[in-house]
Amino acid sequence: MPHPMSNPLQGRHASARATMAAAGLDALILVHIPNVRYLTGFTGSTAIVVMTASELIFITDGRYTTTIETVVAPNCPGLRLVRVDPTFDATLARIVTESGARAVGFEAAHMTVKRFDWLRSALRTSGGPGGPALQPVDRVVEAIRVVKDEVEQETFRRAGALLDAVAGDVLRTVRAGLRECDLAAEIDYKLRLGGFEKPSFDTIVASGPHAAMPHARPDDRVLAAGDLVVLDFGGVYDGYCVDLTRTVSVGEPSQEARRLYDAVAEAQWAGVAAVRPGAPVTDVDEAARGVLERHGLGAAFCHATGHGLGLEIHEEPRVGPRRADIPGVPPAGTDLVLEPGVVITVEPGAYVPGLGGVRIEDDVLVTRDGVEWLTRVPRELRVV
Amino acid sequence: MPHPMSNPLQGRHASARATMAAAGLDALILVHIPNVRYLTGFTGSTAIVVMTASELIFITDGRYTTTIETVVAPNCPGLRLVRVDPTFDATLARIVTESGARAVGFEAAHMTVKRFDWLRSALRTSGGPGGPALQPVDRVVEAIRVVKDEVEQETFRRAGALLDAVAGDVLRTVRAGLRECDLAAEIDYKLRLGGFEKPSFDTIVASGPHAAMPHARPDDRVLAAGDLVVLDFGGVYDGYCVDLTRTVSVGEPSQEARRLYDAVAEAQWAGVAAVRPGAPVTDVDEAARGVLERHGLGAAFCHATGHGLGLEIHEEPRVGPRRADIPGVPPAGTDLVLEPGVVITVEPGAYVPGLGGVRIEDDVLVTRDGVEWLTRVPRELRVV
Repeated sequence: MPHPMSNPLQGRHASARATMAAAGLDALILVHIPNVRYLTGFTGSTAIVVMTASELIFITDGRYTTTIETVVAPNCPGLRLVRVDPTFDATLARIVTESGARAVGFEAAHMTVKRFDWLRSALRTSGGPGGPALQPVDRVVEAIRVVKDEVEQETFRRAGALLDAVAGDVLRTVRAGLRECDLAAEIDYKLRLGGFEKPSFDTIVASGPHAAMPHARPDDRVLAAGDLVVLDFGGVYDGYCVDLTRTVSVGEPSQEARRLYDAVAEAQWAGVAAVRPGAPVTDVDEAARGVLERHGLGAAFCHATGHGLGLEIHEEPRVGPRRADIPGVPPAGTDLVLEPGVVITVEPGAYVPGLGGVRIEDDVLVTRDGVEWLTRVPRELRVV
Repeated sequence: MPHPMSNPLQGRHASARATMAAAGLDALILVHIPNVRYLTGFTGSTAIVVMTASELIFITDGRYTTTIETVVAPNCPGLRLVRVDPTFDATLARIVTESGARAVGFEAAHMTVKRFDWLRSALRTSGGPGGPALQPVDRVVEAIRVVKDEVEQETFRRAGALLDAVAGDVLRTVRAGLRECDLAAEIDYKLRLGGFEKPSFDTIVASGPHAAMPHARPDDRVLAAGDLVVLDFGGVYDGYCVDLTRTVSVGEPSQEARRLYDAVAEAQWAGVAAVRPGAPVTDVDEAARGVLERHGLGAAFCHATGHGLGLEIHEEPRVGPRRADIPGVPPAGTDLVLEPGVVITVEPGAYVPGLGGVRIEDDVLVTRDGVEWLTRVPRELRVV
């Protein structure tokens, strides 16, 4: 007889409530939708949740109430649905007042000043001098999300394998004569047919001179002999984002292009080799950046080495240079220590006007004894 | 000899600066990316702009500096590029201090409490008691964006015609036996091949019982005889979002389904007929909602009648019920008066568990003497 699966949401609720309790909070207002999804399973775009010691009070509008009643609430312990009336802000103020909470945390990195000002004023009016006090908090849910649980890790493994299949197909499709925008459309279509809900960000196809711009947008430029072409794409699978970059050469690459490619490939390898539990995430950046610097490409590498993946395409940790000793810069999310269950990209690049650019990116999972590649499509320079 | 085109950004800058001056501001911090794009033409995802009386100080990171120098700056009067060092927040604080501005506005509806708190504290440290004071402002750029200029109106006409072509193709594709998710993938692919940069939101294909949920997500349900199928999709064209919904019947519809469709079609017609310059936008909602109420479907229509379109898929004005007399609810963006150049959707719907749902949506432009349909694909119930 199979062991009954415990509900993964319960553990998340317990972790968030432990943080609330440690901060002396009676309630926590959650406005960031990926955090709402993480705690409730809600996949829509508009909701606010007030978490108390016993409830998740879920505020949404008429578009979503059927979904909440039939799909979300049955799987989310403690969820109580409240329909917006007349506005989100007014409903939120009423719910907070009715909850009787005194110390009410809110997500300072996500709540706007406008909503905060309105809410503070409404709570003063309704609560009087003994009413609820708002208290900014940071990373309550994000800190839990950094470490992926077993279910999430399995989701990432499946998503990585699906992305490999799509990428293999994409690499066979690239050829001279294609327009960047048409190739990007093909990639997005292949992602959908390959099992993804949608692209996890705007697909990048950057060829020739465009490849020297790390975040170029595909346009009607036609791929031609002598181009390096950076292909950066990913998909959303069961809510989770994966992300991959390969660079191909149209026709035989020049010696300089080949050297550029080899340097980035070496840097990526060094970055992944630095991934292990207990290591500061800045080690990964340092390893990759160090290789490029040794090749004289330090200035050509103008972005971070990677980022966390999860319900958002960019989440903690940032895999960048050490920031702990920059005055006035909050270290949160930057100088974390890797632990088993963390999922990051490793994606160094080098961009040289006149020559083009190279980026190579894979997704990896920190394991108990090292690292697991989630994407495995070949990393050798493909010549088409 | 053609008349030289004036740069449309200049007029936008002048309007924003007039609002700044009227509010007594020396500088305005812009953090909302669609507003940054509107004022500069920047199409990337990460930037902050500080607008002063003479400059647009553009803060971004190394990924975008080449694009700014070669593409954005040459077309944007007064733009000065500042590369992030070491972080966005620290760079912003330095720029504001260096600008010598005393009264500094910021977008309260977009700036987070966390950034505001950090910035306020940094400015106190750097500026001392006579330093810059932060002042919340609302809708400075949004209010300008509501009325589309000639160039934008032309963009919408082209985008509407392209969406019509895609929709015609999509409607010929729908048939029993298709899975919702595969049809959604086809729609997105057709949008790309049809000239759009990407879908303007997550495409909705909601069939049978799913059609009773206005924001259902496509899953592996197979379209079958007796289904009503709501297809809601749109694309981004040159940065601007268009949006269309049609509902089709798989096999001959029941009498109830036919009645539901006819009621929604009548409501949509009434809504569009209410669009004219000088009318409060709430008239449009009232007209559409009134029809559905007369058909006994008031409770089945659980969302607003429409929304503004532009660089965002949902922007001002909200086309909903009158809110001016709800206590504590800011009327901004709700109870606007329509004027020539405003672009909105008109999309009433009715959702009946057990029967399904219907929504019909078109995009319209307010003209000097009435309304212009931007989308024109036939609105009769299509039976497939």
